[in-house]
Amino acid sequence: MKKAEDFSEWYNEIVEKASLTDKRYPIKGMNVWTPYGWKIMQAIDRHIREGFDGTDHQEVCFPLLVPEDQFAKEKEHIKGFDAEVFWVTHAGLNPLDVRLLLRPTSETAMYPMFSLWVRSHADLPLKTYQIVNTFRYETKQTRAFIRVREIHFFESHTCHADFQDAERQVQEDFDILEKLAEKWCIPYRLLKRTDWDKFPGAFYTVGIDTLLPDGRSLQLGSIHQYNENFSRPYDIKYEDDQGQHKYVHQTTYGMSERLVGSIVAIHGDDKGLVLPPEVASIQVVIVPVLAKGAIDKVTEAARQLHKELKEAGLRVHIDERDVRPGVKYYDWELKGVPLRLELGMRDIESGKITLVRRDIGAKSLNDRSRAVDEVKDMLLTIAREMLARAQKEMDENVVTVDSLDNLPSKMIRTAWCGSEECGHEIETRADKNILGMPIIDEKYDGKCVICGKPTKTPVYLANAM
Amino acid sequence: MKKAEDFSEWYNEIVEKASLTDKRYPIKGMNVWTPYGWKIMQAIDRHIREGFDGTDHQEVCFPLLVPEDQFAKEKEHIKGFDAEVFWVTHAGLNPLDVRLLLRPTSETAMYPMFSLWVRSHADLPLKTYQIVNTFRYETKQTRAFIRVREIHFFESHTCHADFQDAERQVQEDFDILEKLAEKWCIPYRLLKRTDWDKFPGAFYTVGIDTLLPDGRSLQLGSIHQYNENFSRPYDIKYEDDQGQHKYVHQTTYGMSERLVGSIVAIHGDDKGLVLPPEVASIQVVIVPVLAKGAIDKVTEAARQLHKELKEAGLRVHIDERDVRPGVKYYDWELKGVPLRLELGMRDIESGKITLVRRDIGAKSLNDRSRAVDEVKDMLLTIAREMLARAQKEMDENVVTVDSLDNLPSKMIRTAWCGSEECGHEIETRADKNILGMPIIDEKYDGKCVICGKPTKTPVYLANAM
Repeated sequence: MKKAEDFSEWYNEIVEKASLTDKRYPIKGMNVWTPYGWKIMQAIDRHIREGFDGTDHQEVCFPLLVPEDQFAKEKEHIKGFDAEVFWVTHAGLNPLDVRLLLRPTSETAMYPMFSLWVRSHADLPLKTYQIVNTFRYETKQTRAFIRVREIHFFESHTCHADFQDAERQVQEDFDILEKLAEKWCIPYRLLKRTDWDKFPGAFYTVGIDTLLPDGRSLQLGSIHQYNENFSRPYDIKYEDDQGQHKYVHQTTYGMSERLVGSIVAIHGDDKGLVLPPEVASIQVVIVPVLAKGAIDKVTEAARQLHKELKEAGLRVHIDERDVRPGVKYYDWELKGVPLRLELGMRDIESGKITLVRRDIGAKSLNDRSRAVDEVKDMLLTIAREMLARAQKEMDENVVTVDSLDNLPSKMIRTAWCGSEECGHEIETRADKNILGMPIIDEKYDGKCVICGKPTKTPVYLANAM
Repeated sequence: MKKAEDFSEWYNEIVEKASLTDKRYPIKGMNVWTPYGWKIMQAIDRHIREGFDGTDHQEVCFPLLVPEDQFAKEKEHIKGFDAEVFWVTHAGLNPLDVRLLLRPTSETAMYPMFSLWVRSHADLPLKTYQIVNTFRYETKQTRAFIRVREIHFFESHTCHADFQDAERQVQEDFDILEKLAEKWCIPYRLLKRTDWDKFPGAFYTVGIDTLLPDGRSLQLGSIHQYNENFSRPYDIKYEDDQGQHKYVHQTTYGMSERLVGSIVAIHGDDKGLVLPPEVASIQVVIVPVLAKGAIDKVTEAARQLHKELKEAGLRVHIDERDVRPGVKYYDWELKGVPLRLELGMRDIESGKITLVRRDIGAKSLNDRSRAVDEVKDMLLTIAREMLARAQKEMDENVVTVDSLDNLPSKMIRTAWCGSEECGHEIETRADKNILGMPIIDEKYDGKCVICGKPTKTPVYLANAM
């Protein structure tokens, strides 16, 4: 299946052929993380931990189950979720007195405890995160990594003394994201959701949206400012330095295994996955090209190279299987290994190594004596260029229009006055979702495509995946 | 509370005071992993991953929920668990067609997939593991880390061509355990459970038992040989090199957050936790001892030392809080940090550092110029001596007897002919559980304490926690 012809089919085929996941588990939308897919997810988790540990967040792990009465405390929140949670009603052979639900996200698990943890201004800011699985009973068509019912999930939850400090947290979240997305070579837009599309209970929601090759947008995560919307029902208060009791202001930040899906979707090609070097569990694969009479020599040289690269901290694998090099090339291209190192007798004699880039297929001859540096440089180049290409592609697929006629399957940038009435009308006429207004100031001058009122901020639309 | 006076109360108090867990979550037996406790669990998980990755196991992650029909396939297994599983019966607003249970362990989630994964002898051995949370509706009194309803759990699952290869796996598991237990400074006995006490569905079960200070045994994990007991109902077959279809032989190995509980229980003292250096998230805490007029100089020297130790790969923390050194000593002793480094003006002038061991309280003056080596050496010494002391204590609390009269609150070693009838009689008369027969050959000559029949293998009894 060709990516350009049928993206959706190509995606389903590639995640299976590259053994990223096994969808044959007997519950729809609950898939098995196979070793190769799990390693990619773990690399992403490691990046997230580095980003959040490095900004003084503390990792915690809260229980999976939430009692129904705790869940029901914030009215908007429960309204937003009660059609899609899984309920535990029995334990052993008996019904439970209080029904328990599987967390769809952890506000209602954490905040009763935050109410005990936060006492005084000295306890603030409280910055925590966890990486856990969450559960949502999706009724739409499921898709590996992108729409599943058991979701590998990152969520940070913070408490602050006031609105301004919570705003600073949101900014810090943007900064953390920028560094993470660079590692993953993923371009994105930060778009402030409409009031009718924000997270249930949030004061405002910023969506992290990327664009898929078929023109649909994919929300990779979101950053929320809660203001006092949760601290009031959950009674999370602190005593300030004047002895006054105040509600905390809260933020959250969530991202999920969709990150894996976006990497597959954005970078993959007709040969298979193309993994960003920071994400790849194997960054370099060495393929010894054995000729008769030189098998021992080439094997030995390849192993020596493997040892050197490994000692230099690279994630390197040597493929010594007894199959033709062509088979090996095919397999590792499918698996998306960023760099292939071919080594044959001719290379050894001339003191060279051959490097082949997965992303663009380019082949180069490099000095054996500088192998470690050459490989490291090339991985950096690959990462930089993968991000730049994806960024360019996304930019090219954002189209600015001043009318809603004949819209292409792309991300649309247009003018909206901001009123709910015009907003709904735009969504209907465009047959797309309003993703929101950009967080970063964009030079813009337009007139609402519905009512004609002038606006200095564009709005983004797309068919959301 | 003193450990020697009331171990049980001391334990409950210490896990709370050292902030290892928060038991105030509104579901009994489902506790919150606080940052400090979670770091200890993560260190243990890291060791486990090293051990299993290093022996060619592959990490996977299977769904949490298991359909009732899959769960019911192995009859003994379901009998063993059906009184203690949590049932998901509804999703959103509707009842589910097939009830789903929260995994109490993952045989029934994994084996339907193994049946698809294993095709030929080339797929064997299949060696997988996962680290996930599991769920058991405990009806006994809960206790942090030791008896909880959401359990942080490690489980390996392997498939082999024949019984002998599965037996080799069991031996490999013993070897992995030995290295892990050394890091955790935990002594244990490997005891083959009786037929009436083995894991539901297992061919045989080896318990990993340690001994608590109050004389009760604590099972830290278990290693199971399944033979074909699961591969038959789950239809996990392979084609051997003769073209014959055969059932695989399986093993599993499970350990849980009880490891954290055992470290607390075995090593802790009346001042708080005593963490093994490999487990401690802070291995060394630097406490600058500031005197008037030398504050800047001492602070600078302490920070320089902090930097050096950190760069040497040590997990080091500098406590610059504005409180008296005595308060800091108290806090870090409670938290169980293995080594305290005190640095005052006198130390600086004489080119020395003061090191204080948490485990035995010993203080020593060491050369500043050799700080990194001294600290590393001392951590190794602490680990070695912690294990040796714990081992000695366990050995001293195993008592060999030839009658069941007046048994002490210890682990008992005695003679049992092996018959089920005598076994039950022993358990009743001794008012203890039979833990099992030792896996490692012990020189022994005895006569069954019930029927008098001679035996060359002792049996171990204890009051199991």
